[in-house]
Amino acid sequence: MRIGFVGAGAMGVGMIGNLIKAGHEVTVWNRGTGPRAALKSAGAVVADSPLECAAQDIVINMLADDAAVAEVTLDPAFLAAMPAAGLHLSMATISVALAERLGEACATGGRAYVSAPVFGRPPAAAAAQLFVVAAGARDAVARCQPLFDVMGQRTFVVGERAPLANVVKLAGNFMLAAMIETLGEAFALTRKHGIDPQQFLDLLTSTLFTAPVYKTYGGLIASDQYEPAGFKLNLGLKDVRLAQAAADAAMVPMPFAGVLHDRYMTAIAQGHGHLDWAGIARLAAEAAGLHPLADGDPG
Amino acid sequence: MRIGFVGAGAMGVGMIGNLIKAGHEVTVWNRGTGPRAALKSAGAVVADSPLECAAQDIVINMLADDAAVAEVTLDPAFLAAMPAAGLHLSMATISVALAERLGEACATGGRAYVSAPVFGRPPAAAAAQLFVVAAGARDAVARCQPLFDVMGQRTFVVGERAPLANVVKLAGNFMLAAMIETLGEAFALTRKHGIDPQQFLDLLTSTLFTAPVYKTYGGLIASDQYEPAGFKLNLGLKDVRLAQAAADAAMVPMPFAGVLHDRYMTAIAQGHGHLDWAGIARLAAEAAGLHPLADGDPG
Amino acid sequence: MRIGFVGAGAMGVGMIGNLIKAGHEVTVWNRGTGPRAALKSAGAVVADSPLECAAQDIVINMLADDAAVAEVTLDPAFLAAMPAAGLHLSMATISVALAERLGEACATGGRAYVSAPVFGRPPAAAAAQLFVVAAGARDAVARCQPLFDVMGQRTFVVGERAPLANVVKLAGNFMLAAMIETLGEAFALTRKHGIDPQQFLDLLTSTLFTAPVYKTYGGLIASDQYEPAGFKLNLGLKDVRLAQAAADAAMVPMPFAGVLHDRYMTAIAQGHGHLDWAGIARLAAEAAGLHPLADGDPG
Amino acid sequence: MRIGFVGAGAMGVGMIGNLIKAGHEVTVWNRGTGPRAALKSAGAVVADSPLECAAQDIVINMLADDAAVAEVTLDPAFLAAMPAAGLHLSMATISVALAERLGEACATGGRAYVSAPVFGRPPAAAAAQLFVVAAGARDAVARCQPLFDVMGQRTFVVGERAPLANVVKLAGNFMLAAMIETLGEAFALTRKHGIDPQQFLDLLTSTLFTAPVYKTYGGLIASDQYEPAGFKLNLGLKDVRLAQAAADAAMVPMPFAGVLHDRYMTAIAQGHGHLDWAGIARLAAEAAGLHPLADGDPG
Repeated sequence: MRIGFVGAGAMGVGMIGNLIKAGHEVTVWNRGTGPRAALKSAGAVVADSPLECAAQDIVINMLADDAAVAEVTLDPAFLAAMPAAGLHLSMATISVALAERLGEACATGGRAYVSAPVFGRPPAAAAAQLFVVAAGARDAVARCQPLFDVMGQRTFVVGERAPLANVVKLAGNFMLAAMIETLGEAFALTRKHGIDPQQFLDLLTSTLFTAPVYKTYGGLIASDQYEPAGFKLNLGLKDVRLAQAAADAAMVPMPFAGVLHDRYMTAIAQGHGHLDWAGIARLAAEAAGLHPLADGDPG
Repeated sequence: MRIGFVGAGAMGVGMIGNLIKAGHEVTVWNRGTGPRAALKSAGAVVADSPLECAAQDIVINMLADDAAVAEVTLDPAFLAAMPAAGLHLSMATISVALAERLGEACATGGRAYVSAPVFGRPPAAAAAQLFVVAAGARDAVARCQPLFDVMGQRTFVVGERAPLANVVKLAGNFMLAAMIETLGEAFALTRKHGIDPQQFLDLLTSTLFTAPVYKTYGGLIASDQYEPAGFKLNLGLKDVRLAQAAADAAMVPMPFAGVLHDRYMTAIAQGHGHLDWAGIARLAAEAAGLHPLADGDPG
Repeated sequence: MRIGFVGAGAMGVGMIGNLIKAGHEVTVWNRGTGPRAALKSAGAVVADSPLECAAQDIVINMLADDAAVAEVTLDPAFLAAMPAAGLHLSMATISVALAERLGEACATGGRAYVSAPVFGRPPAAAAAQLFVVAAGARDAVARCQPLFDVMGQRTFVVGERAPLANVVKLAGNFMLAAMIETLGEAFALTRKHGIDPQQFLDLLTSTLFTAPVYKTYGGLIASDQYEPAGFKLNLGLKDVRLAQAAADAAMVPMPFAGVLHDRYMTAIAQGHGHLDWAGIARLAAEAAGLHPLADGDPG
Repeated sequence: MRIGFVGAGAMGVGMIGNLIKAGHEVTVWNRGTGPRAALKSAGAVVADSPLECAAQDIVINMLADDAAVAEVTLDPAFLAAMPAAGLHLSMATISVALAERLGEACATGGRAYVSAPVFGRPPAAAAAQLFVVAAGARDAVARCQPLFDVMGQRTFVVGERAPLANVVKLAGNFMLAAMIETLGEAFALTRKHGIDPQQFLDLLTSTLFTAPVYKTYGGLIASDQYEPAGFKLNLGLKDVRLAQAAADAAMVPMPFAGVLHDRYMTAIAQGHGHLDWAGIARLAAEAAGLHPLADGDPG
């Protein structure tokens, strides 16, 4: 299939590679000039404008945020460049409200729209191990399925209205953030009583909390090391706000989300937006009067 | 070894069975008369008074709560009945403050004290699959280790001051309660947007949240079924309060614990204390204006 | 002075009356046809279009919310209709972000802009007893001062950047909402212990909390009567959201605002958006398992 | 009347002075030796033991906290020293649970018990301007009324069960703490946007929030000056905890109280327990990334 792909960031590069490996013809546009050479040598056509991507059978966006997605894909020229049977497949983490607008914009011109955000980090994207959460008209999702199959390990179709996929993605990210805060409070409690953080981590992840995410985030918190960031605090706030916006629109009070919102705002207002988003755990420790762990300090 | 065991509830019965199978001589006391026959036929000596249990080499308590543990094991007669080399092994879920008092009471009389609460439900107790969290003087813990080995699948020794084991147990229970609330809010958000709860559950537990506890509690919430209770809401409040008391004593602010406290209080004040403690998820749904799911209703 | 006035609601009607009494020539536009006759008989010129209002020396808006203000006053035709020395005086409760856009829109065309929201209810508007919170360029505010003098009892100029006045107005409304929640929790606590609500109210307002707002809102809560609404719950949520948006933009975590947000959402999701915004106090009572007070029931 | 008075702290000294002025014979005991000379010269009999105070017609306690009140007044010798028609009048800020125990202890010996905590600071105590909140058996309260009349400006009798007065006192203190947090968040919001704190304070206290408590606490926050403390943060935490305990006992969820609890814990854990309890406002400012105001700095 001829695929357009806008947004060749850390995630996009891996996804593009897998599409090419599967025999698809991929035309890529990225705002910066960064990965052009790498993309070319991987077999991608590098476009000078997103309109070239829009002109393909399916155009995928994996852009950074609402602002970038709206600017590029709601541009009337972008919509006009899409073929009559075109399909916009939005895989970025965006708001429910924007997904609605994207769907309407495509529908107006008779094009199809599918939301399919993913769970997984860059290594999972490179290894075609993403989890894809898709929603949209049945036939539109079916057209995308072969692409999901080569980019991810499993696809979950959660409904026929595209924004539902975004709701699920944001709910999942909220759950991760809540898990981080939960760990932060539990580590503050045990550490202040004198429990060794590594030992507590080992216990948690060997007993009740065996999911790998506990190991990943618990490990950052136990060692009190939040740099380099796998996913930045700034983006954590963005995601919490998107989840709250989805909750607000549907009138769903979420007290944990309110606590998370304050944690991310505090960390960023105090200058820590560049840390990994697990760094809000340091706020729980500081509130308890604990000091940052020095390297190698057992507690 | 000659073991005394006070508190033959749903957990205790399984633990006693495993001690007997391993060849220990177990003298059991229980407040009610319930499992006497079963205990006898399993090979236990059924005592008429906790003092007979106190007189054994090691006396284990697996009583219901702080009040029961204090009444039975801080009774001067109980302490006096312990042999000079006696050891009190408290495996119940009790407060950090009570664990301190138990330790002091034993120390005053020259006896040893070990805290070793467990993670696991009655079936795990019966199957010797408990996780044991132990703390106390090194030699005292070592004396208990053979008992841990036959009651549990793994022991974590978290320190030489006995109450540390209780801190860890309470932190773990806090984490479970926070996971429940997190699920409750995420299900309310997705369900109000029209996502099928079972599908959302399948997605969560197949991707990021693969720990069995997510399957267990997520299953209750997705089906909106909280009876019969595996662990009652009333006890959930008790455990949240114990975690908060441990946090208060060490001056550790825990905002999620505050939210949980209000959830459990609300559910109980509104007459739902008999439901499973995952039932606080219904409060998140109700606050969003959702109605209870009828049986078989997909959402 | 020749004044345009868009938005003749319950507040606007009183303000218009006072402007006319002071000898100003007032041209009024309102979306509905409601108060036309009354406005005419009071001496106002009733316009068929907001553009007629825009054409006056100063055009005041007292519209309902952000959407209405943006639709009417950001219309390019409205801006074009303003005289070269025109001034837009926005007295509605709007977002800080919209106030910024209004200021920019006026500045682009060389017109002046002043934000001057007010504290006070319709009777205070009618009695020229409003408190005016004004901000904007010094000379622009000075031009408006004679109007403030006839509409209010006192004007507070809080800065030279217009949106500052909106920040202060939203902070004030946040404080009122927080006072309501505080009262709700305190009444729930005392009522559940058996204290008579009217007696508790009398005590509060005779001792520490003598400000009239405590009497007003405390009275509603003590009698558990929230209809007819003086200010609706729906609007309360709107105001809390505006305060949170102002806080978000400046990165100011406000945990009480988060609690309020959940309270208003819950009340509205459960179908109570038409009650007075003090009605969130009923949520505190219900969470404690208390039932609504029947009329005349002392508690 | 012959009055015993235990607890001659900053509050007690003023109250004792007013009792003496009204012609009562007052026997005083205080743990320290501090105000002995002053008390004597004021006309008090200074006792060497609280038992001498207990032996009077009415014994008033104005001790510091639950621990002190329990130690002194639940001492069997104290109870035995009370005359057959004795009355214990507890005016300290204590827990509802302790008030119940004090009442039971007196009832057991046939003595009367009245709870009558007060609102007001030391200057109000000295000026006989306290507000007295009283509860207890009708005739017992009547016996105390002449004393209330000379110590306070007004008495509120809130019920016939003594602990009700303590509930009301704790609810009032909760409301003060909530007002402080509300001010803290509102000041953080406005200050970060660039509003001058003194100007914001002037506006608040001239318009909606005219109660003197807003002037007092708002003044501390606007100037960011929390030393010397009028009422220490440490005691603020104590009072919030007492309110929460009263709420817990009656199953009344109070989310604002939860936030306050975390604020006071944080401030104390970070070493600020000696500041005035309005100092939690600094946490709201710090979370927004604001720095303490230097003296004379307008914001």
